[in-house]
Amino acid sequence: MLFHVTMDVNLPPALDPEGLTEILDREKAYCQDLQVKGKWVHLWRVVGQYANVSIFDVDSPDELHEILWNLPLFSFMTVKVMPLCPHPSAL
Amino acid sequence: MLFHVTMDVNLPPALDPEGLTEILDREKAYCQDLQVKGKWVHLWRVVGQYANVSIFDVDSPDELHEILWNLPLFSFMTVKVMPLCPHPSAL
Amino acid sequence: MLFHVTMDVNLPPALDPEGLTEILDREKAYCQDLQVKGKWVHLWRVVGQYANVSIFDVDSPDELHEILWNLPLFSFMTVKVMPLCPHPSAL
Amino acid sequence: MLFHVTMDVNLPPALDPEGLTEILDREKAYCQDLQVKGKWVHLWRVVGQYANVSIFDVDSPDELHEILWNLPLFSFMTVKVMPLCPHPSAL
Amino acid sequence: MLFHVTMDVNLPPALDPEGLTEILDREKAYCQDLQVKGKWVHLWRVVGQYANVSIFDVDSPDELHEILWNLPLFSFMTVKVMPLCPHPSAL
Amino acid sequence: MLFHVTMDVNLPPALDPEGLTEILDREKAYCQDLQVKGKWVHLWRVVGQYANVSIFDVDSPDELHEILWNLPLFSFMTVKVMPLCPHPSAL
Amino acid sequence: MLFHVTMDVNLPPALDPEGLTEILDREKAYCQDLQVKGKWVHLWRVVGQYANVSIFDVDSPDELHEILWNLPLFSFMTVKVMPLCPHPSAL
Amino acid sequence: MLFHVTMDVNLPPALDPEGLTEILDREKAYCQDLQVKGKWVHLWRVVGQYANVSIFDVDSPDELHEILWNLPLFSFMTVKVMPLCPHPSAL
Amino acid sequence: MLFHVTMDVNLPPALDPEGLTEILDREKAYCQDLQVKGKWVHLWRVVGQYANVSIFDVDSPDELHEILWNLPLFSFMTVKVMPLCPHPSAL
Amino acid sequence: MLFHVTMDVNLPPALDPEGLTEILDREKAYCQDLQVKGKWVHLWRVVGQYANVSIFDVDSPDELHEILWNLPLFSFMTVKVMPLCPHPSAL
Repeated sequence: MLFHVTMDVNLPPALDPEGLTEILDREKAYCQDLQVKGKWVHLWRVVGQYANVSIFDVDSPDELHEILWNLPLFSFMTVKVMPLCPHPSAL
Repeated sequence: MLFHVTMDVNLPPALDPEGLTEILDREKAYCQDLQVKGKWVHLWRVVGQYANVSIFDVDSPDELHEILWNLPLFSFMTVKVMPLCPHPSAL
Repeated sequence: MLFHVTMDVNLPPALDPEGLTEILDREKAYCQDLQVKGKWVHLWRVVGQYANVSIFDVDSPDELHEILWNLPLFSFMTVKVMPLCPHPSAL
Repeated sequence: MLFHVTMDVNLPPALDPEGLTEILDREKAYCQDLQVKGKWVHLWRVVGQYANVSIFDVDSPDELHEILWNLPLFSFMTVKVMPLCPHPSAL
Repeated sequence: MLFHVTMDVNLPPALDPEGLTEILDREKAYCQDLQVKGKWVHLWRVVGQYANVSIFDVDSPDELHEILWNLPLFSFMTVKVMPLCPHPSAL
Repeated sequence: MLFHVTMDVNLPPALDPEGLTEILDREKAYCQDLQVKGKWVHLWRVVGQYANVSIFDVDSPDELHEILWNLPLFSFMTVKVMPLCPHPSAL
Repeated sequence: MLFHVTMDVNLPPALDPEGLTEILDREKAYCQDLQVKGKWVHLWRVVGQYANVSIFDVDSPDELHEILWNLPLFSFMTVKVMPLCPHPSAL
Repeated sequence: MLFHVTMDVNLPPALDPEGLTEILDREKAYCQDLQVKGKWVHLWRVVGQYANVSIFDVDSPDELHEILWNLPLFSFMTVKVMPLCPHPSAL
Repeated sequence: MLFHVTMDVNLPPALDPEGLTEILDREKAYCQDLQVKGKWVHLWRVVGQYANVSIFDVDSPDELHEILWNLPLFSFMTVKVMPLCPHPSAL
Repeated sequence: MLFHVTMDVNLPPALDPEGLTEILDREKAYCQDLQVKGKWVHLWRVVGQYANVSIFDVDSPDELHEILWNLPLFSFMTVKVMPLCPHPSAL
């Protein structure tokens, strides 16, 4: 089942640069692993924002929550989740 | 170039049923033609809403405006447009 | 899977009383049928509002959309959907 | 009487990890005690959020306030309270 | 138990004057009866608004909902309800 | 003349406990003195919030401002003021 | 005592032109009478809006409500009222 | 002096097509005349919206108000005005 | 030309008292100098707020920006600017 | 293609003055270089705000994102992006 997720990142100014690099590396690896597994099926950057629009294809809402909750940047993100379903005009 | 578009439909109560059917038929044909042409690349229904989330792949912002402005339901829609670009973590 | 749904009803003033009664009767029958089937598992009135808070237990987001879209009062409602999952502190 | 409560948690970045663990342990024990007592009758996690939706069954608004005010995480939460009553279509 | 209620009235322009007078008379009688009964314990007009702030003292949230739902102007009102409890500094 | 005032308290996490206790003691004494003087005529806690709803009976808007501005917690509060007047249906 | 009032006018499209002219004439006369009496002490148009910003000098909140409630355009206005007091830096 | 103006058009569904065409023709002529006169110095369509972003170069706020107030579509528009000034980094 | 300006002050908790006193003294002197010069023509405190409503009479939007930008408290303020013009009903 | 961009700057109070000056110098040089290259075609200060309104003329949304993301002040800005297209009434 598909979910539309937006993630807005807001890093606190006091983060030390090394710690930040480490988090960003883990975030990237985590994200790409989910892409390879076919869970994170679309990922776009929003122009001019530290934000993305994503489409997830998961087996359950619980699985989606596990994925999002464990994002290395989760505590610095504002996340919005919207369940999707097939559109009657979609080919 | 990719654009993220949401369309919320709000039909006025006074629309006559025949006129509405005709508009909806034209909307569907118009929408499917753009899918065939590769312009309207994703189309999802938002669960519980008379609304969709769409991704368009167009040659210019002008082309996107022409497409949206000519939607048969355009005057009954609230449309939001967000330009997208590649995400550095996307595979 | 569980979804939290709020429905705010806003009837247009021009509805004729008979038509309204007929819609409300269908709404009630539709709603109670889904309760019997175990799909609409909680239904509360919000104090002072023509609105309810509901919990649905469905097999998929698509099934939830079908249920909501076919509510007799759907075109007079503002609907909000929020996917739920188990809370780690819930017994 | 029933109340619908949402709690959004926003932990300050400067919390020390040990102190946080201690608070979270107390929060869990406090919450589960109220579930056992039949006061906190439903508790769900909102997918993708550090937030919950809860239903409380209390003897008075004062009792609800006492419960919420004494949540170990109260000072880090945004809490919304909505009184509920039986819905005429509920079975 | 006490509830804080605000009521904003928005009359549709198409109401016929006689029907409106009849509704307003019923509203006034209904409101004053509840004051006499000690249910509607405070009622103030908000300066410059067709709106009031009220305090209700009722036996249950259900009773409050019954009172508000049966206001003759209910369908023309935006109602907000907030449960109150004693303040620790109140004498 | 009557004013409806809401006060939402948001204490900064860095306040030292002793300083806080001292401020809260002064706040309580200040508040109770104004109740004794008949200026702060109603004071309720909002259920689930570090907030109150109050009714002030003052001689002028200036007097109200003096009272609010000198609240020991003023700099940690979001204050909203709404002038009231008699309601034509109030007994 | 001084109050800051904003009035946004939103005329319903169905108003007949003659009735509108009559209302606007009464509005202007009513407004100018209050200026002559020293009650409506400032009146400015907001650039690009069918709206004004006004300062009233009245004897009580009740008097202000009477004035605003009886504006011929009152039922077509969104009115906001803000009590003012002397600023310590004002000469 | 420069002003940034956005205009969102919302045509009522009941407008007759001939009357609408006549208004739109007058709007276009009015707008182009102001461009020729150097008052309406930039005019862009917002993609996907019946809305524009404009820059006006006028002699006074009063002149801007006269221009906007007399737009043939003014009563169907939501207009926002923002005064501009030179940016210290602009060449 | 006239501009309506609101200024909401939000002092960071970490400001040292001496530094604050010095800024507030400069703010007052700056403000009173502009009143003497006839630029800052009205200044009112909003009841219950650390905020003011002001009317400026300046020669250009640029002059207004210079004045506001150089307010000693500018970096702690939320400022809103609204251009005004004569109202047709103003005497 | 043209994009309308607004940038609101909110500097954290803890920035050291030297570091700030260095960032502001880089911001100015970066911005002027893009003006010389014809990418940043308009830049206005919003009166009374630490904010600007800008028009960019870029080859793609990706290029716009690169430009904005690399602004020296980017992490202190709230940025809004709106794609533009020719207006049918523009000369």
